[in-house]
Amino acid sequence: MAKANAFYAQSGGVTAVINVSACGVIETARRHKKRIGKVFAGRNGILGALNEELIDTSKESAKAIAGLRTTPSGAFGSCRYKLASLEENAIEYQRLIDVFRAHNIRYFFYNGGGDSQDTANKVSQLSRRLGYDMQCIGIPKTVDNDLALTDTCPGFGSVAKYVAVSTREAALDVASMCETSTKVFVLEVMGRHAGWIAAASALAQDQPGDPPHIILLPEVPFVRAKFLKKVRDTVRSKGYCVVVVSEGAQYKNGTFLADAGGKDAFGHTQLGGVAPMVAQLVKNKLGYKNHWAVADYLQRAARHIASATDVEQAYALGAAAVEFALQGKTAVMTTIVRTQDSPYRWKIGEANLSRVANVEKTMPKSYISADGFGITAKGRRYLAPLIEGEDYPLYKNGMPQYTVLTNHLATKKLPAKW
Amino acid sequence: MAKANAFYAQSGGVTAVINVSACGVIETARRHKKRIGKVFAGRNGILGALNEELIDTSKESAKAIAGLRTTPSGAFGSCRYKLASLEENAIEYQRLIDVFRAHNIRYFFYNGGGDSQDTANKVSQLSRRLGYDMQCIGIPKTVDNDLALTDTCPGFGSVAKYVAVSTREAALDVASMCETSTKVFVLEVMGRHAGWIAAASALAQDQPGDPPHIILLPEVPFVRAKFLKKVRDTVRSKGYCVVVVSEGAQYKNGTFLADAGGKDAFGHTQLGGVAPMVAQLVKNKLGYKNHWAVADYLQRAARHIASATDVEQAYALGAAAVEFALQGKTAVMTTIVRTQDSPYRWKIGEANLSRVANVEKTMPKSYISADGFGITAKGRRYLAPLIEGEDYPLYKNGMPQYTVLTNHLATKKLPAKW
Repeated sequence: MAKANAFYAQSGGVTAVINVSACGVIETARRHKKRIGKVFAGRNGILGALNEELIDTSKESAKAIAGLRTTPSGAFGSCRYKLASLEENAIEYQRLIDVFRAHNIRYFFYNGGGDSQDTANKVSQLSRRLGYDMQCIGIPKTVDNDLALTDTCPGFGSVAKYVAVSTREAALDVASMCETSTKVFVLEVMGRHAGWIAAASALAQDQPGDPPHIILLPEVPFVRAKFLKKVRDTVRSKGYCVVVVSEGAQYKNGTFLADAGGKDAFGHTQLGGVAPMVAQLVKNKLGYKNHWAVADYLQRAARHIASATDVEQAYALGAAAVEFALQGKTAVMTTIVRTQDSPYRWKIGEANLSRVANVEKTMPKSYISADGFGITAKGRRYLAPLIEGEDYPLYKNGMPQYTVLTNHLATKKLPAKW
Repeated sequence: MAKANAFYAQSGGVTAVINVSACGVIETARRHKKRIGKVFAGRNGILGALNEELIDTSKESAKAIAGLRTTPSGAFGSCRYKLASLEENAIEYQRLIDVFRAHNIRYFFYNGGGDSQDTANKVSQLSRRLGYDMQCIGIPKTVDNDLALTDTCPGFGSVAKYVAVSTREAALDVASMCETSTKVFVLEVMGRHAGWIAAASALAQDQPGDPPHIILLPEVPFVRAKFLKKVRDTVRSKGYCVVVVSEGAQYKNGTFLADAGGKDAFGHTQLGGVAPMVAQLVKNKLGYKNHWAVADYLQRAARHIASATDVEQAYALGAAAVEFALQGKTAVMTTIVRTQDSPYRWKIGEANLSRVANVEKTMPKSYISADGFGITAKGRRYLAPLIEGEDYPLYKNGMPQYTVLTNHLATKKLPAKW
């Protein structure tokens, strides 16, 4: 293929390391100047392509792009916007191809979760159908770790580390004061349908019996009496009890413990506030003094405590996407293939987008302990390496120095109305 | 004074660095073996003295004691237990002196906030009254930073850094997604009567107009209409709005915001969550999609992101307490005296316990911006140096290695009943 430009977009909830993948894409593309011209980044994800708001990353210095490696969130903006099927909304897909054609974009890199890989797949299908030659490569990203066919998703290792570290620290706090103060501490973490993040809190344990004493996973139906008994037994034997609850914790009938009633842009039920609900239950039924925390965005933005393994993988997956495209591949997502647990060894692999899209990977039963409140040795073997290593940002005046790009938009070539 | 033993206790809410002060006390005492015998630590604070549960720290290795420097929470246990006045409860004070006498304790180091300094003062008064020669020295500690007569309190600088870093990170997250997702983010932080912690979130700002856009301090009465207008104006001009709210935010009549509703955003009985209450207000009145986080214990236990300045001061204040005692001082608290803002210079000072006890230092008006939603340049000059420097714990397998002591109890010499 003759020299052409590339499009890169960030999609869905951002993470501590999605910019690291962007860094991998852009730095690798810059090393292939004979074949890849400019890398345009979509302003606010795929919306940037639809609106022809293309950020010209060639205007950014090498130093600024390198700074993405230590900057959380989405440097170009992300969006929650799911394209409909090709049949239902051909006009949007046509617009994408029009914009790509106008800017001679022949490489399409889409950095996101399941919905985004589905979009990438559709763009690939349409470009083929229209005879528009384009390499479409997906780059995985999601703190939820629920993408199929990859050992893990960039973003997850860092949120896992944040949650494990925070759990260990808060547990020490509670343990030291439980004699006269708080006896039960509840930490709410993300994970709508998959309990990966909550499960990672188990990495705070050095020994069996260490906190967290109870993990409430979406995969295990919540049974009130069983939960309360475990809390009471734990307080009686340990003096305190640390509970980590997934936002997606639910009853057997599928009702979330905390159903806020609202829906997000994709029609998913908007959740929040399960920690206060669980804490209140403990208070009402057992009378224990309690505290609760909701980590919310703090957990997925916490670049200051990112996993070095996660950072390395995020970069490699972005870089490999460019290499794949240059090899002529399309309609695939770069993946992590685990070759060994301990010490952790991994390599880059690939998966067909059609097999990744919209498939949700929940925790295997074999990772969940018999009582449903913890993880097994097998689960620990899977999770442990993902949080390995620290990768600190630079600090100035006590604050992490995060990169803000100039985000210079390329001149539009098409009518704004479409 | 002939060689005698020392008693050290941790009191009230623990912090990321209270163990650093313990480390300063014990390491310094160990360098004065001719004058100080054993350092006994109270198991669960002053309760350890009342119950004659004295942890013999001489059983701990130098390495273990050094490990306290990087370990959050209270290694010997802390308590919320305030002794009544000498007149009301002479029996408890008498018991303390009995225990101290039985174990030849002539040095009393009490590490805590205002209540604790009050206790230390009373112990000092009683020992004088009973003719029991003892040096009573207070060591300041409180994340709330509300102790008088010291430039700052150990624990505050680290929670300030945690809050500033978390605010910067979460704000980047919100900014990158506000086009199609969350527009308002609310972070609740500690500070029941003083807004120091919430104010520290302003250190996330590099430029005027940077997030946090609104800080709700207990010192500034909450006016709903004014707040909502500021949120709306900010979303219109910036695209999003980050709010940091102190748990002690209140209306003009002194009612806490968190107490006002009785129900949180999700209809659950209110548990003191002001963040969900503020978020719900924004949603109801302005319709903006929002997210909220409650940091709770995570903020005060976050040794992984402690301020190096805070760590250094915590150690110095503990070490100085021992030096003071050896100099024959009593009924004083070690303090931080600021000699210069930038670069920050400080030295150790002292304050009479009678002047420190039960005095609450709220934010000066001159630190609060005219609109009440931020801090002034003067406030920034005060706060900025307190978060300077990073002091990372050691990690193993991706997790911070925190020290757990053996906490060997000394043999009791008195009857358990008193």
